[in-house]
Amino acid sequence: MTSISDLTKDLKQGDIKALARAITYVENEITGSAALLENIDARATPTIGITGPAGAGKSSLVNSLIHLLLMQKQRIGVVAVDPSSPFNYGSLLGDRIRLADHFNNSEVFIRSVATRGSLGGLSDKIMEVVFVMSAFPFDYIFIETVGVGQSEVELAGLADTTIVTMVPDAGDEIQTMKAGLMEIADIFVVNKADHVGADRFAKNLRSLSASRINDEWKIPVLKTIATAKEGISELHQEILRHQQAGFSNKRKPFLLAEKCWRIIQKEKMKEVNKKMLLKEITRLMSDQYFNVYRFAKHYF
Amino acid sequence: MTSISDLTKDLKQGDIKALARAITYVENEITGSAALLENIDARATPTIGITGPAGAGKSSLVNSLIHLLLMQKQRIGVVAVDPSSPFNYGSLLGDRIRLADHFNNSEVFIRSVATRGSLGGLSDKIMEVVFVMSAFPFDYIFIETVGVGQSEVELAGLADTTIVTMVPDAGDEIQTMKAGLMEIADIFVVNKADHVGADRFAKNLRSLSASRINDEWKIPVLKTIATAKEGISELHQEILRHQQAGFSNKRKPFLLAEKCWRIIQKEKMKEVNKKMLLKEITRLMSDQYFNVYRFAKHYF
Repeated sequence: MTSISDLTKDLKQGDIKALARAITYVENEITGSAALLENIDARATPTIGITGPAGAGKSSLVNSLIHLLLMQKQRIGVVAVDPSSPFNYGSLLGDRIRLADHFNNSEVFIRSVATRGSLGGLSDKIMEVVFVMSAFPFDYIFIETVGVGQSEVELAGLADTTIVTMVPDAGDEIQTMKAGLMEIADIFVVNKADHVGADRFAKNLRSLSASRINDEWKIPVLKTIATAKEGISELHQEILRHQQAGFSNKRKPFLLAEKCWRIIQKEKMKEVNKKMLLKEITRLMSDQYFNVYRFAKHYF
Repeated sequence: MTSISDLTKDLKQGDIKALARAITYVENEITGSAALLENIDARATPTIGITGPAGAGKSSLVNSLIHLLLMQKQRIGVVAVDPSSPFNYGSLLGDRIRLADHFNNSEVFIRSVATRGSLGGLSDKIMEVVFVMSAFPFDYIFIETVGVGQSEVELAGLADTTIVTMVPDAGDEIQTMKAGLMEIADIFVVNKADHVGADRFAKNLRSLSASRINDEWKIPVLKTIATAKEGISELHQEILRHQQAGFSNKRKPFLLAEKCWRIIQKEKMKEVNKKMLLKEITRLMSDQYFNVYRFAKHYF
Protein backbone atom coordinates (compact mmCIF):
# COMPACT_ATOMS: atom_id res chain seq x y z
CA MET A 1 0.00 0.00 0.00
CA THR A 2 3.00 2.27 0.44
CA SER A 3 3.55 2.34 -3.29
CA ILE A 4 -0.04 3.50 -3.85
CA SER A 5 0.30 6.40 -1.44
CA ASP A 6 3.67 7.26 -3.01
CA LEU A 7 2.08 7.13 -6.41
CA THR A 8 -0.77 9.46 -5.47
CA LYS A 9 1.73 11.84 -3.87
CA ASP A 10 3.95 11.81 -6.99
CA LEU A 11 0.88 12.37 -9.13
CA LYS A 12 -0.12 15.42 -7.12
CA GLN A 13 3.37 16.83 -7.42
CA GLY A 14 3.37 16.62 -11.19
CA ASP A 15 5.58 13.60 -11.81
CA ILE A 16 4.92 12.62 -15.42
CA LYS A 17 6.33 9.12 -15.01
CA ALA A 18 4.04 8.52 -12.04
CA LEU A 19 1.12 9.67 -14.17
CA ALA A 20 1.99 7.30 -17.00
CA ARG A 21 2.34 4.46 -14.51
CA ALA A 22 -0.92 5.29 -12.73
CA ILE A 23 -2.82 5.30 -16.00
CA THR A 24 -1.34 1.94 -16.96
CA TYR A 25 -2.47 0.65 -13.57
CA VAL A 26 -6.09 1.64 -14.00
CA GLU A 27 -6.25 0.80 -17.70
CA ASN A 28 -5.13 -2.75 -17.04
CA GLU A 29 -6.74 -3.14 -13.62
CA ILE A 30 -3.40 -4.07 -12.09
CA THR A 31 -3.57 -5.03 -8.39
CA GLY A 32 -3.79 -1.84 -6.39
CA SER A 33 -5.60 0.11 -9.09
CA ALA A 34 -8.83 0.10 -7.09
CA ALA A 35 -6.99 1.47 -4.06
CA LEU A 36 -5.29 4.05 -6.27
CA LEU A 37 -8.63 5.28 -7.61
CA GLU A 38 -10.13 5.41 -4.12
CA ASN A 39 -7.24 7.54 -2.89
CA ILE A 40 -7.29 10.14 -5.61
CA ASP A 41 -8.30 13.65 -4.69
CA ALA A 42 -9.31 15.09 -8.00
CA ARG A 43 -8.58 18.72 -8.85
CA ALA A 44 -11.25 20.69 -10.62
CA THR A 45 -9.12 20.80 -13.79
CA PRO A 46 -11.00 22.35 -16.71
CA THR A 47 -11.83 19.42 -18.97
CA ILE A 48 -12.53 20.06 -22.63
CA GLY A 49 -14.19 17.43 -24.77
CA ILE A 50 -13.84 17.53 -28.53
CA THR A 51 -16.07 15.35 -30.64
CA GLY A 52 -17.48 15.21 -34.13
CA PRO A 53 -17.55 12.92 -37.14
CA ALA A 54 -14.42 11.29 -38.54
CA GLY A 55 -12.58 13.68 -40.82
CA ALA A 56 -13.82 16.85 -39.12
CA GLY A 57 -10.28 17.73 -38.08
CA LYS A 58 -10.58 17.11 -34.35
CA SER A 59 -6.91 16.19 -33.96
CA SER A 60 -5.76 19.27 -35.86
CA LEU A 61 -7.98 21.39 -33.65
CA VAL A 62 -6.56 19.90 -30.45
CA ASN A 63 -3.10 20.32 -31.93
CA SER A 64 -3.67 24.03 -32.62
CA LEU A 65 -5.19 24.63 -29.20
CA ILE A 66 -2.20 22.96 -27.55
CA HIS A 67 0.23 25.17 -29.45
CA LEU A 68 -1.64 28.23 -28.29
CA LEU A 69 -1.81 27.11 -24.67
CA LEU A 70 1.85 26.09 -24.60
CA MET A 71 2.79 29.65 -25.49
CA GLN A 72 0.87 30.64 -22.36
CA LYS A 73 2.91 28.15 -20.29
CA GLN A 74 -0.07 25.95 -19.58
CA ARG A 75 0.33 22.26 -18.78
CA ILE A 76 -1.90 20.08 -20.85
CA GLY A 77 -3.13 16.50 -20.71
CA VAL A 78 -4.77 14.88 -23.71
CA VAL A 79 -6.79 11.67 -23.78
CA ALA A 80 -7.37 10.53 -27.34
CA VAL A 81 -9.81 7.76 -27.97
CA ASP A 82 -8.41 5.66 -30.77
CA PRO A 83 -10.89 5.45 -33.58
CA SER A 84 -11.41 1.99 -34.97
CA SER A 85 -11.24 3.21 -38.56
CA PRO A 86 -7.77 2.39 -39.89
CA PHE A 87 -8.03 5.34 -42.25
CA ASN A 88 -8.27 7.83 -39.43
CA TYR A 89 -5.79 5.98 -37.37
CA GLY A 90 -3.04 6.82 -39.83
CA SER A 91 -3.76 10.52 -39.90
CA LEU A 92 -4.13 10.71 -36.13
CA LEU A 93 -0.91 8.87 -35.63
CA GLY A 94 0.77 11.64 -37.55
CA ASP A 95 -0.56 14.15 -35.04
CA ARG A 96 0.40 11.94 -32.15
CA ILE A 97 3.98 11.84 -33.33
CA ARG A 98 4.10 15.57 -33.80
CA LEU A 99 2.60 16.08 -30.35
CA ALA A 100 5.10 13.65 -28.87
CA ASP A 101 7.79 16.33 -29.37
CA HIS A 102 5.96 18.52 -26.91
CA PHE A 103 5.68 15.58 -24.58
CA ASN A 104 9.45 15.72 -24.06
CA ASN A 105 8.93 19.20 -22.71
CA SER A 106 6.73 17.69 -19.99
CA GLU A 107 4.12 20.28 -20.69
CA VAL A 108 1.94 18.11 -22.89
CA PHE A 109 1.01 14.60 -21.93
CA ILE A 110 -0.87 12.52 -24.47
CA ARG A 111 -2.49 9.19 -23.87
CA SER A 112 -4.41 7.11 -26.38
CA VAL A 113 -6.99 4.71 -25.08
CA ALA A 114 -8.57 1.95 -27.11
CA THR A 115 -12.24 1.99 -28.04
CA ARG A 116 -14.58 -0.50 -26.51
CA GLY A 117 -16.02 -3.26 -28.64
CA SER A 118 -17.72 -2.67 -31.92
CA LEU A 119 -19.80 0.34 -30.98
CA GLY A 120 -16.92 2.74 -31.31
CA GLY A 121 -17.90 4.35 -28.03
CA LEU A 122 -15.57 5.60 -25.37
CA SER A 123 -13.12 3.21 -23.82
CA ASP A 124 -14.27 1.22 -20.83
CA LYS A 125 -11.54 2.93 -18.86
CA ILE A 126 -11.76 6.49 -20.15
CA MET A 127 -13.39 7.71 -16.97
CA GLU A 128 -10.64 6.19 -14.83
CA VAL A 129 -7.93 7.64 -17.07
CA VAL A 130 -9.45 11.13 -16.90
CA PHE A 131 -9.91 10.78 -13.14
CA VAL A 132 -6.24 9.88 -12.66
CA MET A 133 -5.23 12.80 -14.87
CA SER A 134 -7.31 15.13 -12.73
CA ALA A 135 -5.00 14.38 -9.80
CA PHE A 136 -2.06 15.79 -11.78
CA PRO A 137 -1.44 19.56 -11.86
CA PHE A 138 -2.62 20.10 -15.42
CA ASP A 139 -4.14 23.40 -16.40
CA TYR A 140 -6.31 21.70 -19.01
CA ILE A 141 -7.41 18.20 -19.87
CA PHE A 142 -8.57 17.50 -23.42
CA ILE A 143 -10.60 14.48 -24.40
CA GLU A 144 -10.79 13.84 -28.10
CA THR A 145 -13.21 11.29 -29.46
CA VAL A 146 -15.08 10.41 -32.61
CA GLY A 147 -18.72 11.19 -32.01
CA VAL A 148 -20.72 8.00 -32.29
CA GLY A 149 -23.96 7.66 -30.42
CA GLN A 150 -23.32 6.57 -26.88
CA SER A 151 -19.79 8.00 -26.75
CA GLU A 152 -21.11 11.54 -27.13
CA VAL A 153 -23.26 11.20 -24.08
CA GLU A 154 -20.37 9.81 -22.05
CA LEU A 155 -18.09 12.57 -23.28
CA ALA A 156 -20.60 15.20 -22.33
CA GLY A 157 -20.71 13.73 -18.84
CA LEU A 158 -16.93 13.88 -18.51
CA ALA A 159 -16.17 17.26 -20.02
CA ASP A 160 -16.93 20.66 -18.51
CA THR A 161 -16.99 22.14 -21.98
CA THR A 162 -17.92 20.09 -25.01
CA ILE A 163 -16.83 21.24 -28.45
CA VAL A 164 -18.62 19.67 -31.37
CA THR A 165 -16.58 19.93 -34.55
CA MET A 166 -18.07 19.62 -37.99
CA VAL A 167 -17.19 20.30 -41.58
CA PRO A 168 -19.35 22.08 -44.15
CA ASP A 169 -19.50 19.03 -46.41
CA ALA A 170 -20.84 16.80 -43.65
CA GLY A 171 -24.07 16.72 -45.68
CA ASP A 172 -26.84 14.37 -44.74
CA GLU A 173 -25.00 12.82 -41.88
CA ILE A 174 -25.34 16.06 -39.99
CA GLN A 175 -29.11 16.02 -40.30
CA THR A 176 -29.29 12.84 -38.32
CA MET A 177 -26.66 13.89 -35.82
CA LYS A 178 -27.85 17.44 -35.29
CA ALA A 179 -30.40 16.81 -32.59
CA GLY A 180 -28.05 14.71 -30.50
CA LEU A 181 -25.10 17.03 -31.02
CA MET A 182 -27.13 20.09 -30.10
CA GLU A 183 -27.91 18.37 -26.83
CA ILE A 184 -24.28 18.03 -25.83
CA ALA A 185 -22.53 20.94 -27.55
CA ASP A 186 -21.32 23.95 -25.57
CA ILE A 187 -19.45 25.26 -28.59
CA PHE A 188 -19.92 24.47 -32.26
CA VAL A 189 -16.90 24.60 -34.52
CA VAL A 190 -17.23 24.64 -38.28
CA ASN A 191 -13.76 23.51 -39.25
CA LYS A 192 -12.30 23.65 -42.75
CA ALA A 193 -14.09 26.97 -43.02
CA ASP A 194 -12.49 27.61 -46.40
CA HIS A 195 -14.55 24.80 -47.90
CA VAL A 196 -17.60 25.49 -50.05
CA GLY A 197 -20.76 26.03 -48.04
CA ALA A 198 -19.06 26.90 -44.76
CA ASP A 199 -20.90 30.19 -44.35
CA ARG A 200 -24.29 28.73 -45.07
CA PHE A 201 -23.54 25.80 -42.76
CA ALA A 202 -22.45 28.08 -39.91
CA LYS A 203 -25.53 30.22 -40.45
CA ASN A 204 -27.79 27.18 -40.20
CA LEU A 205 -26.14 26.13 -36.97
CA ARG A 206 -26.54 29.66 -35.59
CA SER A 207 -30.26 29.73 -36.22
CA LEU A 208 -30.52 26.29 -34.67
CA SER A 209 -28.71 27.59 -31.59
CA ALA A 210 -30.76 30.80 -31.47
CA SER A 211 -34.02 28.85 -31.69
CA ARG A 212 -33.40 27.16 -28.35
CA ILE A 213 -35.23 29.64 -26.16
CA ASN A 214 -34.79 27.96 -22.81
CA ASP A 215 -31.03 27.68 -22.81
CA GLU A 216 -29.03 29.70 -20.31
CA TRP A 217 -26.03 29.35 -22.58
CA LYS A 218 -26.39 30.19 -26.28
CA ILE A 219 -24.13 27.81 -28.18
CA PRO A 220 -21.64 29.93 -30.11
CA VAL A 221 -20.76 28.85 -33.65
CA LEU A 222 -17.14 29.41 -34.67
CA LYS A 223 -15.38 29.00 -37.98
CA THR A 224 -11.84 27.61 -37.94
CA ILE A 225 -9.18 26.33 -40.29
CA ALA A 226 -7.30 24.25 -37.74
CA THR A 227 -4.44 23.27 -40.04
CA ALA A 228 -3.72 26.97 -40.65
CA LYS A 229 -4.38 27.85 -36.99
CA GLU A 230 -7.15 30.24 -38.06
CA GLY A 231 -9.89 30.93 -35.53
CA ILE A 232 -8.07 29.09 -32.74
CA SER A 233 -7.57 32.13 -30.55
CA GLU A 234 -11.30 32.90 -30.85
CA LEU A 235 -12.09 29.33 -29.91
CA HIS A 236 -9.88 29.63 -26.87
CA GLN A 237 -11.74 32.77 -25.83
CA GLU A 238 -15.07 30.97 -26.11
CA ILE A 239 -13.74 28.07 -24.03
CA LEU A 240 -12.69 30.55 -21.32
CA ARG A 241 -16.02 32.33 -21.52
CA HIS A 242 -17.90 29.04 -21.10
CA GLN A 243 -15.70 27.95 -18.19
CA GLN A 244 -16.12 31.30 -16.47
CA ALA A 245 -19.89 31.21 -16.88
CA GLY A 246 -19.61 28.38 -14.36
CA PHE A 247 -22.42 26.14 -15.49
CA SER A 248 -22.47 22.84 -13.70
CA ASN A 249 -22.34 19.83 -15.96
CA LYS A 250 -25.84 18.43 -15.81
CA ARG A 251 -24.79 15.13 -17.29
CA LYS A 252 -22.01 14.39 -14.86
CA PRO A 253 -24.18 12.99 -12.03
CA PHE A 254 -25.81 10.55 -14.46
CA LEU A 255 -22.45 9.32 -15.65
CA LEU A 256 -21.23 8.98 -12.07
CA ALA A 257 -24.35 7.10 -11.00
CA GLU A 258 -23.92 4.70 -13.91
CA LYS A 259 -20.25 4.19 -13.06
CA CYS A 260 -21.08 3.70 -9.40
CA TRP A 261 -23.67 1.10 -10.30
CA ARG A 262 -21.13 -0.79 -12.37
CA ILE A 263 -18.52 -0.74 -9.62
CA ILE A 264 -21.01 -2.15 -7.12
CA GLN A 265 -22.16 -4.78 -9.58
CA LYS A 266 -18.61 -5.89 -10.25
CA GLU A 267 -17.95 -6.23 -6.54
CA LYS A 268 -21.14 -8.15 -5.87
CA MET A 269 -20.55 -10.50 -8.78
CA LYS A 270 -16.87 -11.11 -8.18
CA GLU A 271 -17.47 -14.60 -6.84
CA VAL A 272 -19.74 -15.62 -9.69
CA ASN A 273 -17.92 -16.18 -12.93
CA LYS A 274 -19.28 -17.32 -16.24
CA LYS A 275 -16.71 -20.06 -16.75
CA MET A 276 -17.71 -21.71 -13.51
CA LEU A 277 -21.40 -21.39 -14.37
CA LEU A 278 -20.74 -22.86 -17.80
CA LYS A 279 -18.97 -25.84 -16.32
CA GLU A 280 -21.77 -26.56 -13.85
CA ILE A 281 -24.53 -26.00 -16.37
CA THR A 282 -22.86 -28.23 -18.95
CA ARG A 283 -22.73 -30.98 -16.36
CA LEU A 284 -26.36 -30.52 -15.30
CA MET A 285 -27.84 -30.16 -18.77
CA SER A 286 -28.04 -33.92 -19.17
CA ASP A 287 -30.81 -33.81 -16.55
CA GLN A 288 -34.09 -34.16 -18.32
CA TYR A 289 -35.64 -30.97 -16.95
CA PHE A 290 -32.75 -28.61 -16.40
CA ASN A 291 -34.21 -25.22 -15.49
CA VAL A 292 -31.80 -22.28 -15.45
CA TYR A 293 -34.25 -20.06 -13.53
CA ARG A 294 -34.33 -22.62 -10.73
CA PHE A 295 -30.59 -23.28 -10.90
CA ALA A 296 -29.63 -19.60 -10.61
CA LYS A 297 -31.21 -19.43 -7.14
CA HIS A 298 -28.29 -21.35 -5.68
CA TYR A 299 -26.23 -18.20 -6.10
CA PHE A 300 -28.65 -15.72 -4.58
CA MET B 1 -48.97 -19.34 -5.64
CA THR B 2 -51.95 -21.58 -6.45
CA SER B 3 -52.46 -19.68 -9.63
CA ILE B 4 -48.87 -20.37 -10.68
CA SER B 5 -49.18 -24.09 -10.16
CA ASP B 6 -52.54 -24.04 -11.96
CA LEU B 7 -50.94 -22.15 -14.80
CA THR B 8 -48.07 -24.62 -15.19
CA LYS B 9 -50.56 -27.49 -15.09
CA ASP B 10 -52.78 -25.86 -17.74
CA LEU B 11 -49.70 -25.19 -19.84
CA LYS B 12 -48.68 -28.84 -19.73
CA GLN B 13 -52.17 -29.89 -20.71
CA GLY B 14 -52.14 -27.73 -23.81
CA ASP B 15 -54.39 -24.86 -22.78
CA ILE B 16 -53.71 -22.14 -25.37
CA LYS B 17 -55.16 -19.36 -23.18
CA ALA B 18 -52.88 -20.39 -20.32
CA LEU B 19 -49.94 -20.24 -22.73
CA ALA B 20 -50.83 -16.75 -23.89
CA ARG B 21 -51.21 -15.63 -20.29
CA ALA B 22 -47.95 -17.25 -19.19
CA ILE B 23 -46.03 -15.52 -21.98
CA THR B 24 -47.53 -12.18 -21.04
CA TYR B 25 -46.42 -12.84 -17.46
CA VAL B 26 -42.79 -13.43 -18.33
CA GLU B 27 -42.62 -10.78 -21.04
CA ASN B 28 -43.77 -8.10 -18.64
CA GLU B 29 -42.20 -9.56 -15.50
CA ILE B 30 -45.54 -9.59 -13.72
CA THR B 31 -45.38 -10.69 -10.08
CA GLY B 32 -45.15 -14.44 -10.04
CA SER B 33 -43.33 -14.69 -13.35
CA ALA B 34 -40.10 -15.72 -11.61
CA ALA B 35 -41.95 -18.47 -9.76
CA LEU B 36 -43.62 -19.53 -13.00
CA LEU B 37 -40.26 -19.87 -14.76
CA GLU B 38 -38.78 -21.79 -11.86
CA ASN B 39 -41.65 -24.26 -11.93
CA ILE B 40 -41.58 -25.07 -15.60
CA ASP B 41 -40.54 -28.54 -16.66
CA ALA B 42 -39.52 -28.01 -20.24
CA ARG B 43 -40.19 -30.67 -22.84
CA ALA B 44 -37.51 -31.40 -25.38
CA THR B 45 -39.62 -29.89 -28.14
CA PRO B 46 -37.73 -29.65 -31.44
CA THR B 47 -36.91 -25.98 -31.82
CA ILE B 48 -36.19 -24.63 -35.28
CA GLY B 49 -34.55 -21.24 -35.72
CA ILE B 50 -34.88 -19.38 -38.98
CA THR B 51 -32.66 -16.41 -39.63
CA GLY B 52 -31.23 -14.46 -42.52
CA PRO B 53 -31.17 -10.94 -43.89
CA ALA B 54 -34.33 -8.87 -44.29
CA GLY B 55 -36.13 -9.73 -47.48
CA ALA B 56 -34.86 -13.30 -47.67
CA GLY B 57 -38.38 -14.60 -47.26
CA LYS B 58 -38.11 -16.01 -43.75
CA SER B 59 -41.78 -15.46 -42.98
CA SER B 60 -42.90 -17.11 -46.20
CA LEU B 61 -40.66 -20.04 -45.42
CA VAL B 62 -42.11 -20.44 -41.92
CA ASN B 63 -45.56 -20.06 -43.41
CA SER B 64 -44.95 -22.86 -45.92
CA LEU B 65 -43.45 -25.13 -43.32
CA ILE B 66 -46.45 -24.59 -41.07
CA HIS B 67 -48.85 -25.48 -43.86
CA LEU B 68 -46.96 -28.70 -44.46
CA LEU B 69 -46.81 -29.63 -40.77
CA LEU B 70 -50.48 -28.83 -40.20
CA MET B 71 -51.38 -31.40 -42.82
CA GLN B 72 -49.47 -33.88 -40.67
CA LYS B 73 -51.55 -32.85 -37.62
CA GLN B 74 -48.58 -31.29 -35.83
CA ARG B 75 -49.03 -28.57 -33.20
CA ILE B 76 -46.80 -25.61 -33.83
CA GLY B 77 -45.62 -22.64 -31.83
CA VAL B 78 -43.99 -19.67 -33.55
CA VAL B 79 -41.99 -16.90 -31.91
CA ALA B 80 -41.40 -14.07 -34.36
CA VAL B 81 -38.98 -11.34 -33.43
CA ASP B 82 -40.44 -8.12 -34.73
CA PRO B 83 -37.97 -6.46 -37.06
CA SER B 84 -37.46 -2.78 -36.45
CA SER B 85 -37.69 -1.97 -40.15
CA PRO B 86 -41.15 -0.59 -40.84
CA PHE B 87 -40.88 -1.88 -44.39
CA ASN B 88 -40.59 -5.47 -43.24
CA TYR B 89 -43.14 -4.99 -40.56
CA GLY B 90 -45.85 -4.48 -43.11
CA SER B 91 -45.07 -7.57 -45.11
CA LEU B 92 -44.73 -9.68 -41.98
CA LEU B 93 -47.99 -8.44 -40.64
CA GLY B 94 -49.62 -9.82 -43.74
CA ASP B 95 -48.24 -13.24 -42.91
CA ARG B 96 -49.23 -12.88 -39.31
CA ILE B 97 -52.81 -12.19 -40.23
CA ARG B 98 -52.89 -15.14 -42.58
CA LEU B 99 -51.42 -17.34 -39.86
CA ALA B 100 -53.97 -16.04 -37.38
CA ASP B 101 -56.59 -18.11 -39.20
CA HIS B 102 -54.74 -21.24 -38.23
CA PHE B 103 -54.49 -19.95 -34.71
CA ASN B 104 -58.24 -20.37 -34.34
CA ASN B 105 -57.68 -24.07 -35.00
CA SER B 106 -55.49 -24.13 -31.89
CA GLU B 107 -52.83 -25.92 -33.86
CA VAL B 108 -50.67 -22.89 -34.56
CA PHE B 109 -49.78 -20.39 -31.92
CA ILE B 110 -47.89 -17.28 -32.98
CA ARG B 111 -46.31 -14.75 -30.72
CA SER B 112 -44.39 -11.66 -31.76
CA VAL B 113 -41.83 -10.26 -29.38
CA ALA B 114 -40.27 -6.85 -29.66
CA THR B 115 -36.61 -6.37 -30.44
CA ARG B 116 -34.33 -5.02 -27.78
CA GLY B 117 -32.90 -1.55 -28.15
CA SER B 118 -31.19 -0.30 -31.26
CA LEU B 119 -29.04 -3.31 -31.98
CA GLY B 120 -31.92 -5.20 -33.56
CA GLY B 121 -30.95 -8.32 -31.64
CA LEU B 122 -33.26 -10.80 -30.05
CA SER B 123 -35.71 -9.60 -27.47
CA ASP B 124 -34.59 -9.50 -23.88
CA LYS B 125 -37.32 -11.98 -23.11
CA ILE B 126 -37.08 -14.31 -26.06
CA MET B 127 -35.44 -17.01 -23.98
CA GLU B 128 -38.20 -16.85 -21.39
CA VAL B 129 -40.89 -16.94 -24.07
CA VAL B 130 -39.37 -20.00 -25.74
CA PHE B 131 -38.92 -21.65 -22.35
CA VAL B 132 -42.59 -21.15 -21.50
CA MET B 133 -43.57 -22.50 -24.92
CA SER B 134 -41.46 -25.58 -24.30
CA ALA B 135 -43.80 -26.50 -21.42
CA PHE B 136 -46.72 -26.68 -23.86
CA PRO B 137 -47.30 -29.86 -25.90
CA PHE B 138 -46.12 -28.47 -29.21
CA ASP B 139 -44.58 -30.77 -31.77
CA TYR B 140 -42.40 -27.97 -33.09
CA ILE B 141 -41.33 -24.51 -32.00
CA PHE B 142 -40.17 -22.05 -34.65
CA ILE B 143 -38.16 -18.95 -33.88
CA GLU B 144 -37.97 -16.48 -36.71
CA THR B 145 -35.57 -13.57 -36.53
CA VAL B 146 -33.70 -11.16 -38.76
CA GLY B 147 -30.05 -12.13 -38.63
CA VAL B 148 -28.06 -9.26 -37.16
CA GLY B 149 -24.80 -9.96 -35.36
CA GLN B 150 -25.50 -10.86 -31.77
CA SER B 151 -29.00 -12.14 -32.43
CA GLU B 152 -27.69 -14.93 -34.61
CA VAL B 153 -25.52 -16.25 -31.84
CA GLU B 154 -28.43 -16.13 -29.39
CA LEU B 155 -30.70 -17.86 -31.87
CA ALA B 156 -28.15 -20.59 -32.41
CA GLY B 157 -28.07 -21.14 -28.65
CA LEU B 158 -31.86 -21.47 -28.49
CA ALA B 159 -32.60 -23.57 -31.56
CA ASP B 160 -31.82 -27.23 -32.02
CA THR B 161 -31.72 -26.71 -35.75
CA THR B 162 -30.80 -23.36 -37.28
CA ILE B 163 -31.86 -22.58 -40.82
CA VAL B 164 -30.06 -19.70 -42.49
CA THR B 165 -32.08 -18.29 -45.34
CA MET B 166 -30.58 -16.21 -48.09
CA VAL B 167 -31.44 -14.95 -51.55
CA PRO B 168 -29.24 -15.13 -54.64
CA ASP B 169 -29.09 -11.35 -54.96
CA ALA B 170 -27.76 -10.83 -51.44
CA GLY B 171 -24.52 -9.72 -53.09
CA ASP B 172 -21.81 -8.13 -51.00
CA GLU B 173 -23.72 -8.32 -47.78
CA ILE B 174 -23.34 -12.06 -47.87
CA GLN B 175 -19.58 -11.85 -48.07
CA THR B 176 -19.42 -10.19 -44.69
CA MET B 177 -22.06 -12.41 -43.14
CA LYS B 178 -20.85 -15.69 -44.56
CA ALA B 179 -18.29 -16.55 -41.92
CA GLY B 180 -20.66 -15.87 -39.03
CA LEU B 181 -23.58 -17.59 -40.72
CA MET B 182 -21.56 -20.67 -41.53
CA GLU B 183 -20.80 -20.90 -37.84
CA ILE B 184 -24.44 -21.16 -36.81
CA ALA B 185 -26.15 -22.75 -39.83
CA ASP B 186 -27.34 -26.33 -39.72
CA ILE B 187 -29.19 -25.90 -43.00
CA PHE B 188 -28.71 -23.32 -45.72
CA VAL B 189 -31.72 -22.28 -47.75
CA VAL B 190 -31.36 -20.37 -50.99
CA ASN B 191 -34.85 -18.94 -51.25
CA LYS B 192 -36.29 -17.23 -54.32
CA ALA B 193 -34.45 -19.91 -56.26
CA ASP B 194 -36.04 -18.72 -59.49
CA HIS B 195 -33.99 -15.52 -59.29
CA VAL B 196 -30.93 -15.00 -61.47
CA GLY B 197 -27.76 -16.47 -60.02
CA ALA B 198 -29.48 -18.91 -57.66
CA ASP B 199 -27.63 -21.95 -59.01
CA ARG B 200 -24.23 -20.31 -58.81
CA PHE B 201 -25.01 -19.00 -55.33
CA ALA B 202 -26.10 -22.43 -54.09
CA LYS B 203 -23.00 -23.97 -55.67
CA ASN B 204 -20.76 -21.49 -53.83
CA LEU B 205 -22.44 -22.29 -50.53
CA ARG B 206 -22.04 -26.02 -51.20
CA SER B 207 -18.30 -25.74 -51.76
CA LEU B 208 -18.07 -23.61 -48.64
CA SER B 209 -19.91 -26.31 -46.69
CA ALA B 210 -17.84 -29.11 -48.25
CA SER B 211 -14.60 -27.32 -47.40
CA ARG B 212 -15.23 -27.62 -43.66
CA ILE B 213 -13.39 -30.89 -43.11
CA ASN B 214 -13.87 -31.19 -39.36
CA ASP B 215 -17.64 -30.95 -39.24
CA GLU B 216 -19.63 -33.97 -38.16
CA TRP B 217 -22.62 -32.50 -39.97
CA LYS B 218 -22.23 -31.29 -43.54
CA ILE B 219 -24.49 -28.28 -43.94
CA PRO B 220 -26.97 -29.10 -46.71
CA VAL B 221 -27.82 -26.34 -49.18
CA LEU B 222 -31.41 -26.33 -50.37
CA LYS B 223 -33.17 -24.27 -52.99
CA THR B 224 -36.71 -23.12 -52.26
CA ILE B 225 -39.38 -20.82 -53.63
CA ALA B 226 -41.29 -20.37 -50.40
CA THR B 227 -44.17 -18.36 -51.87
CA ALA B 228 -44.84 -21.21 -54.33
CA LYS B 229 -44.18 -23.87 -51.67
CA GLU B 230 -41.40 -25.32 -53.77
CA GLY B 231 -38.65 -27.21 -51.96
CA ILE B 232 -40.49 -27.11 -48.63
CA SER B 233 -40.99 -30.85 -48.36
CA GLU B 234 -37.24 -31.34 -48.99
CA LEU B 235 -36.49 -28.75 -46.31
CA HIS B 236 -38.73 -30.61 -43.87
CA GLN B 237 -36.83 -33.82 -44.62
CA GLU B 238 -33.52 -32.10 -43.89
CA ILE B 239 -34.88 -30.72 -40.61
CA LEU B 240 -35.93 -34.25 -39.60
CA ARG B 241 -32.58 -35.65 -40.68
CA HIS B 242 -30.75 -33.05 -38.59
CA GLN B 243 -32.96 -33.66 -35.57
CA GLN B 244 -32.52 -37.41 -35.85
CA ALA B 245 -28.76 -37.09 -36.12
CA GLY B 246 -29.09 -36.01 -32.49
CA PHE B 247 -26.29 -33.47 -32.28
CA SER B 248 -26.28 -31.60 -29.03
CA ASN B 249 -26.43 -27.86 -29.38
CA LYS B 250 -22.94 -26.73 -28.49
CA ARG B 251 -24.01 -23.13 -28.03
CA LYS B 252 -26.80 -23.81 -25.58
CA PRO B 253 -24.64 -24.08 -22.44
CA PHE B 254 -23.03 -20.72 -23.23
CA LEU B 255 -26.40 -19.05 -23.63
CA LEU B 256 -27.64 -20.64 -20.40
CA ALA B 257 -24.53 -19.58 -18.48
CA GLU B 258 -24.95 -16.01 -19.73
CA LYS B 259 -28.63 -16.03 -18.76
CA CYS B 260 -27.83 -17.52 -15.37
CA TRP B 261 -25.22 -14.82 -14.77
CA ARG B 262 -27.77 -12.12 -15.56
CA ILE B 263 -30.40 -13.62 -13.26
CA ILE B 264 -27.93 -13.72 -10.38
CA GLN B 265 -26.77 -10.18 -11.11
CA LYS B 266 -30.31 -8.89 -11.10
CA GLU B 267 -30.99 -10.53 -7.77
CA LYS B 268 -27.81 -9.23 -6.18
CA MET B 269 -28.40 -5.72 -7.46
CA LYS B 270 -32.07 -5.52 -6.63
CA GLU B 271 -31.48 -3.23 -3.68
CA VAL B 272 -29.20 -0.87 -5.60
CA ASN B 273 -31.00 1.30 -8.06
CA LYS B 274 -29.61 3.98 -10.30
CA LYS B 275 -32.17 6.60 -9.31
CA MET B 276 -31.20 6.33 -5.67
CA LEU B 277 -27.50 6.49 -6.56
CA LEU B 278 -28.14 9.53 -8.72
CA LYS B 279 -29.90 11.31 -5.90
CA GLU B 280 -27.12 10.64 -3.41
CA ILE B 281 -24.35 11.45 -5.85
CA THR B 282 -25.98 14.70 -6.88
CA ARG B 283 -26.12 15.71 -3.24
CA LEU B 284 -22.50 14.73 -2.56
CA MET B 285 -20.99 16.21 -5.71
CA SER B 286 -20.78 19.62 -4.11
CA ASP B 287 -18.02 18.14 -1.91
CA GLN B 288 -14.72 19.34 -3.22
CA TYR B 289 -13.21 15.91 -3.68
CA PHE B 290 -16.11 13.65 -4.47
CA ASN B 291 -14.68 10.28 -5.46
CA VAL B 292 -17.08 7.76 -6.97
CA TYR B 293 -14.66 4.86 -6.47
CA ARG B 294 -14.60 5.59 -2.75
CA PHE B 295 -18.34 6.24 -2.58
CA ALA B 296 -19.29 2.96 -4.27
CA LYS B 297 -17.73 0.98 -1.41
CA HIS B 298 -20.65 1.87 0.86
CA TYR B 299 -22.71 -0.59 -1.16
CA PHE B 300 -20.29 -3.51 -1.16
